[in-house]
Amino acid sequence: MNIILIYPHEWPDPDLEEAELTLSDRRFDYIRNFHKPAVGDFLRVGLLNGRLGNAQVLKLTHKQVCLKARLHLAPPPPSPATLVLALPRPKVLRRTLQAATTLGVKTIYLINSYRVEKSFWQTPFLKKHSLEEQIHLGLEQCQDTIPPEIHLKPRFKPFVEDELKDIVTNQQAIVAHPKNTDIPFPDRIQEPCCIAIGPEGGFIPYEIDLLESIGFKTCTLGNRILKVETAVSVLLGRCL
Amino acid sequence: MNIILIYPHEWPDPDLEEAELTLSDRRFDYIRNFHKPAVGDFLRVGLLNGRLGNAQVLKLTHKQVCLKARLHLAPPPPSPATLVLALPRPKVLRRTLQAATTLGVKTIYLINSYRVEKSFWQTPFLKKHSLEEQIHLGLEQCQDTIPPEIHLKPRFKPFVEDELKDIVTNQQAIVAHPKNTDIPFPDRIQEPCCIAIGPEGGFIPYEIDLLESIGFKTCTLGNRILKVETAVSVLLGRCL
Repeated sequence: MNIILIYPHEWPDPDLEEAELTLSDRRFDYIRNFHKPAVGDFLRVGLLNGRLGNAQVLKLTHKQVCLKARLHLAPPPPSPATLVLALPRPKVLRRTLQAATTLGVKTIYLINSYRVEKSFWQTPFLKKHSLEEQIHLGLEQCQDTIPPEIHLKPRFKPFVEDELKDIVTNQQAIVAHPKNTDIPFPDRIQEPCCIAIGPEGGFIPYEIDLLESIGFKTCTLGNRILKVETAVSVLLGRCL
Repeated sequence: MNIILIYPHEWPDPDLEEAELTLSDRRFDYIRNFHKPAVGDFLRVGLLNGRLGNAQVLKLTHKQVCLKARLHLAPPPPSPATLVLALPRPKVLRRTLQAATTLGVKTIYLINSYRVEKSFWQTPFLKKHSLEEQIHLGLEQCQDTIPPEIHLKPRFKPFVEDELKDIVTNQQAIVAHPKNTDIPFPDRIQEPCCIAIGPEGGFIPYEIDLLESIGFKTCTLGNRILKVETAVSVLLGRCL
């Protein structure tokens, strides 16, 4: 937790630069057990969907911490990448969403694919509250305040043909695929781009063909088959 | 498990291209439950520290599988990077070693640093058998057969001054550090290089100074503070 995240309902007015607030939940526990501040010390804070800044500890009891926060800094620039990710298994999903958030992605489409197990769509980790939990952990890690929007797209063909086609108009679109191509994934991406990553086992040829038909270029990272979470970090890491 | 790993003691002679073998351990369980092959089907296999190839299923019972393997392919090229990593907490260590293995690193130094908790050096995950388990999982994932060598260096200063200094002679040496530098981490590395990654919270200034004194260049990935496992994937991903 490299920043303490403040939620909009805790902040009197989004335009206000300074305010006092009291925390008594997991953030208080973390502050007490890890930061262990003295009264007068400063902590890094950020307002969800707002600015970053510092907060001075005014009072610390065994139940809560009172802070005076000043929000005067812009959050870090976003990643130029939009992530289109075949829904991974629930445990991997959580880690991958956190990693993608720390790498600054602001739009994530979780999509179906032939090799995505149907049961994955039933996981409680896809509930709004659970997704937000992972995203907030990611924001706290990377000192950002702007959460990614996550869109669930459980039908591959209609999503690709009716929505993704428009999303990738006027931007680079790349699908990372370990086979059938010698085109290396770009070393560095600074313009808006859309990166699609398949499930364990990869997209099937029909899916690659459909993605290519709407403008995706198939690229490779070499012969090594990476785990989904490693691939996400490697690819988004080229957009930093 | 994208290849079934064969251990040297199971293979009659390292120079032999074909041999039969019987598996009844976790590899058998995986083959039976995930690959679900019929007799006559082929699986990808690799000999630890040897070649890759295919194996035909000769017989499959509820207790074991008999394979006829042919090893005729070279393993994928190694990463040009040597990884120097401040020892992460045990759970993170396991995932990070697996990821580094899938990304093709062949030499890993796990080192001490001011912000490495002393208790981390006591974890059973540092025992030879446990390290090998993670490495073999990584090799099976990325279809490689050459394991990284892992060196434990629980004393920072003697390691840097007496060993690391020689290791980085005649190669690029980079320490990734989120602060105090505007030099971006290189987009692509193809020559031998040494990459040092600090603990959660980063190396302390004294440690950065000592690394710079033996030739390390301090580089940044930007303002975002990444988890150790994400940083490892991002940085080694630029050496693919």
